[in-house]
Amino acid sequence: MLSDIEYPSDLRKLSSAQLPALAQELRKFIIDIVASKEGHLGASLGVIELTIALHYIFDTPNDQLVWDVGHQAYPHKILTGRKNRFHTNRQLGGLSGFPKRDESAYDTFGVGHSSTSISAALGMAIASKLKGDTYKQHIAVIGDASIASGMAFEGLNHGGVTDANLLIILNDNAIGIDPSVGALKEYLTKAKVGRKPKTDNIIEALNFKYYGPVDGHDLPTLLRELKRLQSVEGPKLLHIITTKGKGLKQAEENQVQYHAPGKFNAHTGELLPKKDVQAPPKFQDVFGLTLLELARNNPKIVGITPAMPTGSSLKYMMDEMPDRAFDVGIAEQHAVTLAAGMATQGLTVFCTIYSTFLQRAYDQIIHDVALQNLPVIFCVDRSGLVGADGATHHGVFDIAYLNCIPNLLIAAPSNEIELRNLLYTASLGLSHPIAIRYPRGRGTLLNWQKPFENFVVGKGICLSKGTKAAIISTGTIGANVMEAIRISKANLAHYHFPFIKPLDTKLLHTILAAYDTILTVEEGTIIGGFGSTIVSYATKQKYKGTLETLGVPDTFIEQGTPEELQHLCGISINALVERFKGL
Amino acid sequence: MLSDIEYPSDLRKLSSAQLPALAQELRKFIIDIVASKEGHLGASLGVIELTIALHYIFDTPNDQLVWDVGHQAYPHKILTGRKNRFHTNRQLGGLSGFPKRDESAYDTFGVGHSSTSISAALGMAIASKLKGDTYKQHIAVIGDASIASGMAFEGLNHGGVTDANLLIILNDNAIGIDPSVGALKEYLTKAKVGRKPKTDNIIEALNFKYYGPVDGHDLPTLLRELKRLQSVEGPKLLHIITTKGKGLKQAEENQVQYHAPGKFNAHTGELLPKKDVQAPPKFQDVFGLTLLELARNNPKIVGITPAMPTGSSLKYMMDEMPDRAFDVGIAEQHAVTLAAGMATQGLTVFCTIYSTFLQRAYDQIIHDVALQNLPVIFCVDRSGLVGADGATHHGVFDIAYLNCIPNLLIAAPSNEIELRNLLYTASLGLSHPIAIRYPRGRGTLLNWQKPFENFVVGKGICLSKGTKAAIISTGTIGANVMEAIRISKANLAHYHFPFIKPLDTKLLHTILAAYDTILTVEEGTIIGGFGSTIVSYATKQKYKGTLETLGVPDTFIEQGTPEELQHLCGISINALVERFKGL
Repeated sequence: MLSDIEYPSDLRKLSSAQLPALAQELRKFIIDIVASKEGHLGASLGVIELTIALHYIFDTPNDQLVWDVGHQAYPHKILTGRKNRFHTNRQLGGLSGFPKRDESAYDTFGVGHSSTSISAALGMAIASKLKGDTYKQHIAVIGDASIASGMAFEGLNHGGVTDANLLIILNDNAIGIDPSVGALKEYLTKAKVGRKPKTDNIIEALNFKYYGPVDGHDLPTLLRELKRLQSVEGPKLLHIITTKGKGLKQAEENQVQYHAPGKFNAHTGELLPKKDVQAPPKFQDVFGLTLLELARNNPKIVGITPAMPTGSSLKYMMDEMPDRAFDVGIAEQHAVTLAAGMATQGLTVFCTIYSTFLQRAYDQIIHDVALQNLPVIFCVDRSGLVGADGATHHGVFDIAYLNCIPNLLIAAPSNEIELRNLLYTASLGLSHPIAIRYPRGRGTLLNWQKPFENFVVGKGICLSKGTKAAIISTGTIGANVMEAIRISKANLAHYHFPFIKPLDTKLLHTILAAYDTILTVEEGTIIGGFGSTIVSYATKQKYKGTLETLGVPDTFIEQGTPEELQHLCGISINALVERFKGL
Repeated sequence: MLSDIEYPSDLRKLSSAQLPALAQELRKFIIDIVASKEGHLGASLGVIELTIALHYIFDTPNDQLVWDVGHQAYPHKILTGRKNRFHTNRQLGGLSGFPKRDESAYDTFGVGHSSTSISAALGMAIASKLKGDTYKQHIAVIGDASIASGMAFEGLNHGGVTDANLLIILNDNAIGIDPSVGALKEYLTKAKVGRKPKTDNIIEALNFKYYGPVDGHDLPTLLRELKRLQSVEGPKLLHIITTKGKGLKQAEENQVQYHAPGKFNAHTGELLPKKDVQAPPKFQDVFGLTLLELARNNPKIVGITPAMPTGSSLKYMMDEMPDRAFDVGIAEQHAVTLAAGMATQGLTVFCTIYSTFLQRAYDQIIHDVALQNLPVIFCVDRSGLVGADGATHHGVFDIAYLNCIPNLLIAAPSNEIELRNLLYTASLGLSHPIAIRYPRGRGTLLNWQKPFENFVVGKGICLSKGTKAAIISTGTIGANVMEAIRISKANLAHYHFPFIKPLDTKLLHTILAAYDTILTVEEGTIIGGFGSTIVSYATKQKYKGTLETLGVPDTFIEQGTPEELQHLCGISINALVERFKGL
């Protein structure tokens, strides 16, 4: 059947009795492609029936469907004109891994970060009312981990006092990327187990009509409920229970691992063995294992992650010291101010947040941490170009948005050992908060667990000597610079600044005096970035040479491999080789 | 009695029977001083009894008290060693208008922005548990408007699954600065009216023990409840009902106006008449009245404010077109994504948020608006140095944090007419989102309601000619530049760039070619600001002259008059006169 379906209009030609079989075809289609092309698996397998039911009952794209986060949108994409391009998912020039307005009229709102769907769909619903499109339906599909985030609560709190035609589908599978946490999750669990929740439940307290819970894999039930809800006016919520990874045994049993499992055997479900067991460590593991090592020797150390224990590798510490490492759920704002509160009591707080999600806690960094000069240690994970997750997930703004904040130190280690030593140095107690940025994925060093060395705050390093020009880099992009110098055999000096703030002005002064041509290289926005700091200092020093800043240009960068994206930005090894030849 | 009280230890020597009389003294003390020195009145009058009760029962500062927002902390300050300095409140070098850690050990956490208290107090409480300080109490006092913000929900959601010794006092007066809105507010109102709320209420759903509601002006009841709660373990919430402005008739009756009433007669409560009826308009009114004018002629226009209808002057539109102008409560994140949702439907959305609070919606600007290139119009109110509200409220980071975002235009009008015309131009439909920043308070032009003129996006203006050097300013600080040129009689050219992005590179190119000395002036951080953009362009153009950037240095600026603070930053008229003499 799936082969005959391009768009929901084709789907609607089927009888409802045919839909369960279609669900199985769709499930197999996704498993087959993700098994070899990689991507997010579990979330999509969990909403196959829901997706079919939604497009079957509702008049998409006239009725507007917003998927929260979007990991679960593969069946949606496949049923809305993108089946034949689905194998290009998350590749350069291919489909985005998330719903995206440019890609399809069925993608009513671009997503990637969590908990935006209620606000967005409410905005659409209010707009429809104002425009007189009273027949239109607006549907937000949101998971139980996402709905517990503050932004979703704000949307519910507003939605509940409107008469907007808004349907929220709470897709409750008790897991986000890691298992859900928090009081709301416990409450929902109570509602599921046993019997129907009480009339006066938390959703109804916010003026939403509450329906469910129902089995989200039972197509006849879903069809009946959605059909009925079409004629219910005003804000309403349907609570459905699903299983993440539904239909693939291993994915159901290992939900964290099969969130994005990498390559696996489509028939057996088994993960393919990693080829290179001797690979350098992930930066995340350098963080997580080093933190655990430090915490064993220092009872004042605590760790905080907003919903990314596995992704950030805080899990090592959580497993061994559950009372000192905290997963607070998708709650970046709370995570940062909680860290500030702990820091007032003299604890040494490591707060690990992905760069792109730290944007959610920007005010808290300024107002609760930096203004009070509390020495919270921000471990800014997944800085730079993250690759396949694309535009919503690149961590390229953090230098610019952090650099203007007084009191805050900003560091960007060049490799695993530097990250390790920066974590160590920060744990000894700095008189300021610090942000340590490091990328997604693996480093370059196998033998990284060396004895700790204290880092001198604000000191730059000369990595190689040369006379024609000086290259100044910060962070792990320095590896590209080193390699490009090696390949191009250019006579270039290379300086690495592990600290963006404070800047090593003494070293910089020497560099400005010695070179007529200077290039800065960073994996972050050129505007407001490390290079712009160098340019400002050079201008103050009345530098008369040529100074060029390389980094991420003033445009949103889409998905691709990190190398492809670095190349687009002119900071891949090959691009740098070319550029260095011209010096 | 008040004259004998310096610290809570003195307070605790009184009998509980004496406390109501002390409350009246304290109330009078605050009214007398705020009547002549100005400041926030209503919130403090509403918590006189609560403050006395908290310091009487709890062992502050060992027990830790966090005031949310902090407008209500005057009685707290007066009872904790700052009575004799209270007349310096909000002045340069005086007391901060908000709790502040540097100022007193009783100020356990600095506040100003809303909804941080639960996270901060929870952090302290968890830290106490870890340190073995199990006897310590941790109390967050939060209003009903603040607790409805997403961040507070995140704190509750986490707090409810801990065994932390956390007491939340919900100070429910049904108003923030403007009356509270939202579904939670309606729910709390139901709980108040009639009888005790049901056992399974929304607070208990989040695993907090719930007590109340009780009369927050009834000292014996408060003392009894707080005493009892001292021995209740784990997370708990006491719901108290208070009246904002309690004890001053006019303040009780006009709660919005008496939030921060300016000077008034301490005996009668009457506001003192404004001296200058012919003053230029507030920029807020230029925004609010112009928007209303535009909205009357364009049904697609809608307005959004997160809880600042009066302060932002969106109230004009809300009063006349309640279905098209929305107060969404203290919910900046939701406000921005709601705007994005509406913009997808072709509405022309004006979203007005104070610069310092827009920090709360940073991720939503990037991820939900700019990435999708939705033409939302951000009216960035209270940009620059706001004056007496101090470090927590200055809007000095916005240029830096917005400038790195692709697709986003940034404008800073120099006066009321430019603001008016920028709003008009944006309403005609730009192909990008735009942020228009303007300051708190009054402009310079009486006759500002001129016929609309279309603004050319990205075009700079020569305001005065001169040969010795060029001054390039953006925004209303340009008025200081003009005046300083006039006073100093310096032979300086003055260029005004209403657009920070896109930059008028054509004009800039001409300026770079014509002048050996260039100064930029802005009311925002030097790091990452307008000047840094000019410096970056000049460096690209290999400019060999001298280029200096004036603005807010890399430090947090405290309270004072805007003029005093501008002077500290070297951008007051006098400071510029001095600087220009040296050119």
